[in-house]
Amino acid sequence: MTDTRPTGAHVSIALLHYPVYDKNRRVVATAVTNLDIHDIARLAKTFGLFRYFVVTPVDEQRTLVERIRSHWRTGWGASYNPKRREALDLLQVAPDLDTVLADLENTWGRPAKIVVTGAKASRDTISSTGLRRMLLDGGQPYLLLFGTGWGLTEEVSDRADYVLEPIKGESDYNHLSVRAAAGIILDRLLGER
Amino acid sequence: MTDTRPTGAHVSIALLHYPVYDKNRRVVATAVTNLDIHDIARLAKTFGLFRYFVVTPVDEQRTLVERIRSHWRTGWGASYNPKRREALDLLQVAPDLDTVLADLENTWGRPAKIVVTGAKASRDTISSTGLRRMLLDGGQPYLLLFGTGWGLTEEVSDRADYVLEPIKGESDYNHLSVRAAAGIILDRLLGER
Repeated sequence: MTDTRPTGAHVSIALLHYPVYDKNRRVVATAVTNLDIHDIARLAKTFGLFRYFVVTPVDEQRTLVERIRSHWRTGWGASYNPKRREALDLLQVAPDLDTVLADLENTWGRPAKIVVTGAKASRDTISSTGLRRMLLDGGQPYLLLFGTGWGLTEEVSDRADYVLEPIKGESDYNHLSVRAAAGIILDRLLGER
Repeated sequence: MTDTRPTGAHVSIALLHYPVYDKNRRVVATAVTNLDIHDIARLAKTFGLFRYFVVTPVDEQRTLVERIRSHWRTGWGASYNPKRREALDLLQVAPDLDTVLADLENTWGRPAKIVVTGAKASRDTISSTGLRRMLLDGGQPYLLLFGTGWGLTEEVSDRADYVLEPIKGESDYNHLSVRAAAGIILDRLLGER
């Protein structure tokens, strides 16, 4: 039951609010959800990730996320609930995917491998087990991409180095919240086995 | 990489809003959170569970949950997003744990085994792998208990047949949202391996 466990120190996660599909497959920018910020930051902290990027091109939305972040990091929230501060230390706001990638390349001295997640896989996928094995190479930065709304657009998926296999449950039902999906995927990739 | 996979058909989940601890270890009833209803219902549907019980002794809160449930099952929400309806079909509202247990015993003809989850384990725990193996016995109903707030009280934990090992990440940080924790635990118990 024990295998070698990869570290999350070179793994980042990005939650994209644009470009994503809406219900009718139109490309939209979704609104930031407060609980996505907190839940995924806490997951990132739990699994020892490098960064959690919240990505939205909308200025007001980025300002909002920054405000939530400061509230819990330096406002009264920091003393009310220090555990949230620790998690939100990993949070970074970005206007688009390219900014995230440039930032990671700048830090790591090499481009991050992009891993796209989603409920539907349009091309060859990599299994969690396969990716977990690859994550043992701690010198290579990875960026896990999650979409909001009805999922990442093909334009984004086309930039992926790897597409992760969708989470399958017992039935064909496959409509998890991004918060729950991120938890399951991080546990599969980096959790205890 | 393949082992025998248990079915979730005899497994239920209950989210308790009372009795739970608050930040200062006082016993309180927490308020129902809309996203807890949806996220965990979608998880329950994905992993083929029998029921998802939302438990609160507060009448108004139970009415609120019923209203959300009807909105998505028979209101305009049902046609707007049929996937939510499917998930909320599993949702049942209950005033307390005893009502849930009586209901399950009534359905299954034998008492459910109670499995308590939480961030801190106060006594001997069972591993996810161990419990997964036990779930292969499809004749035995199981009830997974999750707490809100700062976790289930000792009074509830004392009723457990099993206490599940806490989710451990890379660090000591162990403050996941109940939505993310439920996802990880259901995947460990019932997901593909």
